[in-house]
Amino acid sequence: MSQHRPLILVSNDDGIFSNGIRALAEVAATFGDVEIVAPDRQQSAVGHAITVSTPLRAQKTMVAGKFPGHAVNGTPADCIKLAHNQLLDRKPDLIVSGINHGSNAGINILYSGTVSAATEGTILGYPSLAVSCTDFNEEADLSGCRDAAQKVIAYILEHGLERGVTLNLNAPAGPLKGVRWARQGESRYVEEFEGRVDPYNRDYYWMTGKFEMLENDGGSDIDMIEKGYASLTPIQYDLTSYKLLDKLSKSEI
Amino acid sequence: MSQHRPLILVSNDDGIFSNGIRALAEVAATFGDVEIVAPDRQQSAVGHAITVSTPLRAQKTMVAGKFPGHAVNGTPADCIKLAHNQLLDRKPDLIVSGINHGSNAGINILYSGTVSAATEGTILGYPSLAVSCTDFNEEADLSGCRDAAQKVIAYILEHGLERGVTLNLNAPAGPLKGVRWARQGESRYVEEFEGRVDPYNRDYYWMTGKFEMLENDGGSDIDMIEKGYASLTPIQYDLTSYKLLDKLSKSEI
Repeated sequence: MSQHRPLILVSNDDGIFSNGIRALAEVAATFGDVEIVAPDRQQSAVGHAITVSTPLRAQKTMVAGKFPGHAVNGTPADCIKLAHNQLLDRKPDLIVSGINHGSNAGINILYSGTVSAATEGTILGYPSLAVSCTDFNEEADLSGCRDAAQKVIAYILEHGLERGVTLNLNAPAGPLKGVRWARQGESRYVEEFEGRVDPYNRDYYWMTGKFEMLENDGGSDIDMIEKGYASLTPIQYDLTSYKLLDKLSKSEI
Repeated sequence: MSQHRPLILVSNDDGIFSNGIRALAEVAATFGDVEIVAPDRQQSAVGHAITVSTPLRAQKTMVAGKFPGHAVNGTPADCIKLAHNQLLDRKPDLIVSGINHGSNAGINILYSGTVSAATEGTILGYPSLAVSCTDFNEEADLSGCRDAAQKVIAYILEHGLERGVTLNLNAPAGPLKGVRWARQGESRYVEEFEGRVDPYNRDYYWMTGKFEMLENDGGSDIDMIEKGYASLTPIQYDLTSYKLLDKLSKSEI
């Protein structure tokens, strides 16, 4: 069993034809066989959505002329479920999601389809990693991010990853100082809505926002990224606040 | 300031015209003024998705002939952001989301639009509560669930709620034995996909699934519900696994 070439399943939320997924597939291919199962279109900010009211389709394709893949008309979490249940011939040794074009550090992780694909992998029992470049530009220099992903994939394949935990990697564009473990920060996008009036005199709103840095984010993922490192955060899908549960359990409702 | 009647913002993911949201608005109205801002249609399983690529609209309406509201063409998280930023005249004292038709206990919480609306409220700084009835039937007996919501809302308005924590309440249909604090369980839906062939000879898949109870779920939300109680779980949006972070921080990447 240990003789086989690892199979690495690659997904994302920017869609199967993005630059980022190709870059991550190239990194993954240095470790083993690669299969891509990813949304057929941009699915940013879908969070952990799944598709229950419409059927899913999976179109076979070859990504960048060399990676066998399926383009799915669903969310990132759908892609992982369908890959696990229907599309792959053997179980993957690792699931990687990304490289996302844009940060998934701080609270914004909650909205991330990229991270949700990896979390779905964890729920299904696979070691899983989400990778994001904090630069939204699809042409950004992913070299440092690729190096970081290379190191983290090597680490996971060598050491394994504890059940129930996903790794979330974020790196700035360009070369890096290194990779640092970090907690999830509190900083986040603060939404503003731009109200407009359509040609039929009806109101509508565009969601916009600016990133708000919090003073107390020292030691966080965002802090590490600001300092030129990639941040690596172990995250869990058990959302229970055990600290508060301990405290509240003594109080009657 | 403490003289004013509390304002309670009510949302959900089943849509503004569901039975559950009307039931929860009626409970909320016993404590103060109610405003409803909810999706204009069914948005189950959308998780924490937000709408960034299309504009949002909010249609004024009156729910059940007595609760002022807005029907929004977006996700539950969108509704809370838009209510906070644009639609409400004053800041709410509490945000409640539900009553969802279907369980949001165990791992399924990750897919829940109902819970995400409440989590979004927590991120924005409001005490927030998600309420679900574990019976999917829209005609299910919500009497016990209403009683539980009544108790928990009274508790929050009296004691407040710690910053960063959301309460997640799940109750079976019919009368209850009471409300019990509980952790999030591991049990979850295990998906199966039903493959079909369309009239044009192309494959497609319906996501189906069965709920898988885990042996080790004693003391969990699901365990409490099985025993005839409503479960009340404090959840957090800081996903960091501090236990693993402590351990891994000593290892070099």
